[in-house]
Amino acid sequence: MDPLAAANTAWMLAATAAVALMIPGLALFYGGMVSVRNTLNMAMMTFGAFAVVGVLWVLFGYSVGFGDSVGGAGLIGDPFEYLGLGKLLTASDPAALPPALFAVFQLLFAAITVALISGAFADRMKFAGWMVFAGIWATLVYFPVAHWVFAFNSADGSVTGGWIANKLKAIDFAGGTAVHINAGIAALAVLFVLGKRHAFPHPHRPHNLPLTMLGAGLLYFGWFGFNGGSALAASNSASVVVLNTVAATCAGVCGWLVMERIKAGHATSLGAASGMIAALVAITPACGAVSPIGALIIGAAAGVVCCAAVSLKYKLGYDDALDVVGIHLVGGVLGTLLIGLLATDEAPNAVAGLFYGGGFGQLGRQTVAVLAVLAYTFIVTFIIAKVLDMTMGLRVDAETESGGLDSAIHGETAYVLEALELASVSGSEAEVSAAAEALAADAVESKA
Amino acid sequence: MDPLAAANTAWMLAATAAVALMIPGLALFYGGMVSVRNTLNMAMMTFGAFAVVGVLWVLFGYSVGFGDSVGGAGLIGDPFEYLGLGKLLTASDPAALPPALFAVFQLLFAAITVALISGAFADRMKFAGWMVFAGIWATLVYFPVAHWVFAFNSADGSVTGGWIANKLKAIDFAGGTAVHINAGIAALAVLFVLGKRHAFPHPHRPHNLPLTMLGAGLLYFGWFGFNGGSALAASNSASVVVLNTVAATCAGVCGWLVMERIKAGHATSLGAASGMIAALVAITPACGAVSPIGALIIGAAAGVVCCAAVSLKYKLGYDDALDVVGIHLVGGVLGTLLIGLLATDEAPNAVAGLFYGGGFGQLGRQTVAVLAVLAYTFIVTFIIAKVLDMTMGLRVDAETESGGLDSAIHGETAYVLEALELASVSGSEAEVSAAAEALAADAVESKA
Amino acid sequence: MDPLAAANTAWMLAATAAVALMIPGLALFYGGMVSVRNTLNMAMMTFGAFAVVGVLWVLFGYSVGFGDSVGGAGLIGDPFEYLGLGKLLTASDPAALPPALFAVFQLLFAAITVALISGAFADRMKFAGWMVFAGIWATLVYFPVAHWVFAFNSADGSVTGGWIANKLKAIDFAGGTAVHINAGIAALAVLFVLGKRHAFPHPHRPHNLPLTMLGAGLLYFGWFGFNGGSALAASNSASVVVLNTVAATCAGVCGWLVMERIKAGHATSLGAASGMIAALVAITPACGAVSPIGALIIGAAAGVVCCAAVSLKYKLGYDDALDVVGIHLVGGVLGTLLIGLLATDEAPNAVAGLFYGGGFGQLGRQTVAVLAVLAYTFIVTFIIAKVLDMTMGLRVDAETESGGLDSAIHGETAYVLEALELASVSGSEAEVSAAAEALAADAVESKA
Repeated sequence: MDPLAAANTAWMLAATAAVALMIPGLALFYGGMVSVRNTLNMAMMTFGAFAVVGVLWVLFGYSVGFGDSVGGAGLIGDPFEYLGLGKLLTASDPAALPPALFAVFQLLFAAITVALISGAFADRMKFAGWMVFAGIWATLVYFPVAHWVFAFNSADGSVTGGWIANKLKAIDFAGGTAVHINAGIAALAVLFVLGKRHAFPHPHRPHNLPLTMLGAGLLYFGWFGFNGGSALAASNSASVVVLNTVAATCAGVCGWLVMERIKAGHATSLGAASGMIAALVAITPACGAVSPIGALIIGAAAGVVCCAAVSLKYKLGYDDALDVVGIHLVGGVLGTLLIGLLATDEAPNAVAGLFYGGGFGQLGRQTVAVLAVLAYTFIVTFIIAKVLDMTMGLRVDAETESGGLDSAIHGETAYVLEALELASVSGSEAEVSAAAEALAADAVESKA
Repeated sequence: MDPLAAANTAWMLAATAAVALMIPGLALFYGGMVSVRNTLNMAMMTFGAFAVVGVLWVLFGYSVGFGDSVGGAGLIGDPFEYLGLGKLLTASDPAALPPALFAVFQLLFAAITVALISGAFADRMKFAGWMVFAGIWATLVYFPVAHWVFAFNSADGSVTGGWIANKLKAIDFAGGTAVHINAGIAALAVLFVLGKRHAFPHPHRPHNLPLTMLGAGLLYFGWFGFNGGSALAASNSASVVVLNTVAATCAGVCGWLVMERIKAGHATSLGAASGMIAALVAITPACGAVSPIGALIIGAAAGVVCCAAVSLKYKLGYDDALDVVGIHLVGGVLGTLLIGLLATDEAPNAVAGLFYGGGFGQLGRQTVAVLAVLAYTFIVTFIIAKVLDMTMGLRVDAETESGGLDSAIHGETAYVLEALELASVSGSEAEVSAAAEALAADAVESKA
Repeated sequence: MDPLAAANTAWMLAATAAVALMIPGLALFYGGMVSVRNTLNMAMMTFGAFAVVGVLWVLFGYSVGFGDSVGGAGLIGDPFEYLGLGKLLTASDPAALPPALFAVFQLLFAAITVALISGAFADRMKFAGWMVFAGIWATLVYFPVAHWVFAFNSADGSVTGGWIANKLKAIDFAGGTAVHINAGIAALAVLFVLGKRHAFPHPHRPHNLPLTMLGAGLLYFGWFGFNGGSALAASNSASVVVLNTVAATCAGVCGWLVMERIKAGHATSLGAASGMIAALVAITPACGAVSPIGALIIGAAAGVVCCAAVSLKYKLGYDDALDVVGIHLVGGVLGTLLIGLLATDEAPNAVAGLFYGGGFGQLGRQTVAVLAVLAYTFIVTFIIAKVLDMTMGLRVDAETESGGLDSAIHGETAYVLEALELASVSGSEAEVSAAAEALAADAVESKA
């Protein structure tokens, strides 16, 4: 193998592994935020989406995303070109990234995008309904939109990619449109069908915030691979992308904490985790287009704006349980549009935005990309959800919702903290406990 | 350094780090599955095995595994050749992987294999007995078997490796025999000495399933390094291996969830985590030998078969607490044998199995490798366990077993969730709590 | 890009990602060790330090650390040279590591060093005070000391680095002085101002030891990047460094467990985690200077010595809550000085210590480096803490301290384990619970 290609392969293998950790990361990030009765269900929506989407990706998803555009229109890849991925076993070009590696890197993008959506549906969606939705949504929405945004024309012109990447030439380094806006608007569309939880607008508080902080930490780690790996090379571009990603993350945490301290009097751990994710979302499309100062601005803006945006659901009355709309849709739109203002031609994307002397051109291209994904995804997702709801039904019954989905659907409870011996806690300040009680749960044999 | 060797080194450094995360991953995967009284003991068996085996590896283990075969027989490496690893400080060949890197990558394989075994012994094994067992088993079983399977003859014929890798030429890409069958059959052998828990067949339910899901997630991340790193290069082979690994994982989760949904009515989070691990086990030997479709088949088969196999312990009456036999032995045998059927010569191993026109030859070689490890490891392990049990004793007394090992052996309890103020939970659906109680524990000063 | 530089970039991108995971790792390591009332506050000190220090690093910190030495004195880099890091967008030398990558790798070192300090201040420090302290301490202490230790003169002599690296020529591969001694002595200095907790010397036991083990595991993973990445290349040096790091870790766990088993009768999980970190601290400066046997010795010594050192606080009466002094200061000094004894010229640093025929020279240089950092950091840190305490105040009031900082400062509680249904636990050994009680908490709406 060509040494430079091997170096790029080395980084992309590591980046792919990093992105893989976003699956358990997201499961815990979401799982910690719901009540103790719905923890496992929440985590299972991520694990389940990963499983279903991964299988479909191998079967035909990669082909729809990265096959030669049908009719050269840039709308959808040829679903039969790479059926089953058997063609990817051998690498014809020793100077290129192995195609199998690109395929598995992109598999994880597909899985994560679908899993992101589930956060809006906490506490009330049928697991079977979710699994079917995940497969159909990936097929009809994610695979085509990934083609639009991520499939570039081959250098020799023999393979045609998607319209946003090649014709519109909007900048989306690692998935502001295809991943975050896509997931966010899909969540909103389904919410019109799924409806609010009975408890809305008085949801349970997050049952395990350390779990949520851990999840955010794993996601932030994975984002090094997500953004840095989108350079597809161990290069200066990847390095700038990673620097910008971290800069934005730090500014995002600061932004959210300051904002909520002013708004509500407390800088919370949920705010730190949310600010981290909001900034990571916003920098995702922009990480190759801006300077580190631009990244600080985007991160801080995401922290402040998303912190404000997550309250909208109470005003407008949609039950976006874990703020998929408020963080991924709003953060994704923010980052994608700010490229039009803050892009500098010294950055890897080499395009100047409005504030750097580039005029309104790029801002216009970014806006079109945003609107295209918003419109297509909202409409198709709404139809998918409506059809599923009318056929198999998407929502659990009221009894299951009030008792929690973990025991009813999965036959498990997250924790079994059985009785420990009664004992006093040593130490001068110890509150001597009156009794030690079991947090017993319904008598389910979870492993038989 | 040669640029291609540097690229391979870059990937192998990252892969080694990824494998390293399997240590805490396994500790939590197992720790979450036991009761709250034995959580720390379970996790400590993994941490302890890592510590002991790592020290032995540096002292002489690497030498036994990868030294020149004593007498050229392919049974055991020269234990004195690399004593203390001082020889690995310098790299004589600038075109090769640094030997220190290979040594540390393989150190982690040794540590993980030993730690895997501990899952069968939950809730009843002396910690000191485990630590001594870990050191002796690594020395007498793992180091030699690693030599058989992982030590390849040098290209110039100056160094002779193990018999399975070089004479039998069975395919085991990353350790179906040396790691998973080895650990699984060792667990079974010890169970004959250690016996059942008093509570068997009515074990406690897993006390913390999010912890188990996290552990499974960290293991799956580490497996990118485990399988992908076994290519020892940043190459197309490593890329195919990673794609196959992820494909199998997704299919394994689907397979287990469907199977248990049919069998017991629920798709559980423990099932998702178990299906993930079962598939990863089965694809470990096969990841370089099959196509992505083959990987889907192996993963799904592992999910279904292992889901069925974990019930065997109730029928046959061995108390394999956390299913080391059901998942690692069964999954390892399944994956190793399926190579004989599903191997395609287009994959990195370039061997055709029965279904791809290769006849019965490879299936025969795979079968011999499986049987050799089963026989050698069972016999030697049983003797080790028997001798240890008769001398120092392997099993805790009944009182310790019923009260839990964490407090009796480690002087700690996993959690101290002291009394919080009594308060109502806000929200329309809130079940107002009658009282808030401390989960107090025995008054152990864990840190003095 | 030059293929060798690309290979080095590949490893450094992966190493940077690994180091990034130390942020949530440290947050959980510390968060699990405090009581359930101060968990989030503890984790927030790490997240908050990361955010503040990261922003400052982009603005001017990198420039102070790695800009051309002001006046060539080796004391401080030119703070204006890389202001905002806009200059790092392009890489002028295709054969060198991209400067943006080095900047983000070092950003994480800065953030982690600051966050380490917080462990000493558990349960009693104002969060706002901590955030201000973090920013000022990074500016006045970390950025200059990083310049001393990590900024090497450029090969062509055009850029002057720090005095410890270039004039004194003390060996500190990855930060024994700049990171661990620096953080440890800073913690001690602040403790003179902050004072003891009211509960000292009877602190609460760690509330969640699996969380602490997980945190230690994530830190150990990150250390592969921390130490291995400090080679700045995918090389034999990085490989030896990683091997030594793992060898020391294993020996450190063994050392601590044996020591505490003898001292207090139990080998604890907290001890395993602490031994792991102590060994990692001690090997950090030495990982490029010693043989694997030297690494075993340093690791074991760190386990034994730090296990003894953590009791000192009870004798001397300083309330180093989570043993930042006992582990990072003591372990850092130990590792930095042992280089003077155990360094071998066959290792990457190519210097011989006293035991390897090198005389007292290196031991002297190591001692000067240790004393310089101890003196500078103690004095400046004490002044910072004193000024902050007299102006904004560093300590929470007694009521907040006794009720816990999570609810008072952050408006949250770590866990909400609400009432589950009353049910018996199945199984022959099950202790049927009398009742299931809610661990309710104060009615705080953590997300509004």
